[in-house]
Amino acid sequence: MTSAEPGRPGSHPNDAAAPPPTLPVAPPQGITDARLARQIAFLMEIDKLKSVLRRSNLVDLSRPENDAEHSWHLAMLAVVLGEYAAAGVDHGRVLRMLLVHDLVEIYAGDTFVYDPHAVAGQQQRERAAADQLFPQLPPDQATPLRALWEEFERRDTADARFARALDRVQPLLLNFYTGGSTWRPHGVRHVDVLAHREVIEQGSPALWEYVRTMLDAAVRRGYLLS
Amino acid sequence: MTSAEPGRPGSHPNDAAAPPPTLPVAPPQGITDARLARQIAFLMEIDKLKSVLRRSNLVDLSRPENDAEHSWHLAMLAVVLGEYAAAGVDHGRVLRMLLVHDLVEIYAGDTFVYDPHAVAGQQQRERAAADQLFPQLPPDQATPLRALWEEFERRDTADARFARALDRVQPLLLNFYTGGSTWRPHGVRHVDVLAHREVIEQGSPALWEYVRTMLDAAVRRGYLLS
Repeated sequence: MTSAEPGRPGSHPNDAAAPPPTLPVAPPQGITDARLARQIAFLMEIDKLKSVLRRSNLVDLSRPENDAEHSWHLAMLAVVLGEYAAAGVDHGRVLRMLLVHDLVEIYAGDTFVYDPHAVAGQQQRERAAADQLFPQLPPDQATPLRALWEEFERRDTADARFARALDRVQPLLLNFYTGGSTWRPHGVRHVDVLAHREVIEQGSPALWEYVRTMLDAAVRRGYLLS
Repeated sequence: MTSAEPGRPGSHPNDAAAPPPTLPVAPPQGITDARLARQIAFLMEIDKLKSVLRRSNLVDLSRPENDAEHSWHLAMLAVVLGEYAAAGVDHGRVLRMLLVHDLVEIYAGDTFVYDPHAVAGQQQRERAAADQLFPQLPPDQATPLRALWEEFERRDTADARFARALDRVQPLLLNFYTGGSTWRPHGVRHVDVLAHREVIEQGSPALWEYVRTMLDAAVRRGYLLS
């Protein structure tokens, strides 16, 4: 090994201190399958979801949660709590909906649900982001994935109602199990959280019953303003 | 508001500087549904997957990837690349398999695939972790979820072969698109990566063809030792 020049055939820096190549790196040359290349490019673009931070904190309070791990956690809620959905809910669709529901935040950013100013412009920001993101996929995939996201937003099917309920429940759980770590610094009140009752209760009455009891305990313990 | 004492009815610190309660916080009192309480406790326990770090780096090189966001990314690979699976693959099962496949690492830790010493004890560590983790769920859920993880490990069904192929492909993509950021410091060679050919090719010949071409480009550019 006589050369550490990246890009020369057979050479390799093999050195932790070698400067990384300029990012983003070009896709591999020689790929003959243009459809697959486009799909891979999309999958590398959505890596950015791992860097979109939320207001929730991890249960160990080590750091804020990001959108990608939040999406995984929601999908696990769907796997474990599926029995609390309405009869006839398509659990595979719910999973796909939850996996893609925050993708638009790659360009639109996370919107804090207790910030009325941010919520006001959210729909417009997220539609513009969807216009930018989904067409990076082949059209026959972009169209159904965008439709799935829009269904989640509209909440007009049983699948979307259950998915949206989980998306409301998960940050409440993280808040409770961190002693109100997001509620307390933002002065969130019980009544503010109760404003989400309908989204949770319509998706799953049983989960609402759990959350209702949990919120009462949160107020008694001082995690949440009465 | 005259008291900032947490835990007193009606009181609330409402102060970002208030000390958080001792973790972990006790579950809410008054929950009458013991099954749901157990499911929620499991879902809070697996929050720890967000803190299990992998050797892969994010595409923007900002930090290492964690297992939870890796699991989400794999699930998105399954959504977008499903057409490259064998006919008859159950895509809902593949999703659930990918969502749970790394849960045992909460207790067993991540095993670097190019570290033969770590790989040697991996199976034993992960079985012990599964014995500890899955029984935290109600038995009627613990049994099928553990079976799904074991099927993934055995790779003896078409669903598991496709899921395992994606689990091998994703870190290769992250490596390529970060200029070999894990390969270079660890001196990984082309032949080391080719040892995974079978797992990828048996799960999806089309994805192997992409990876093969990508690895050739990686060697030419100096991301990977020839």
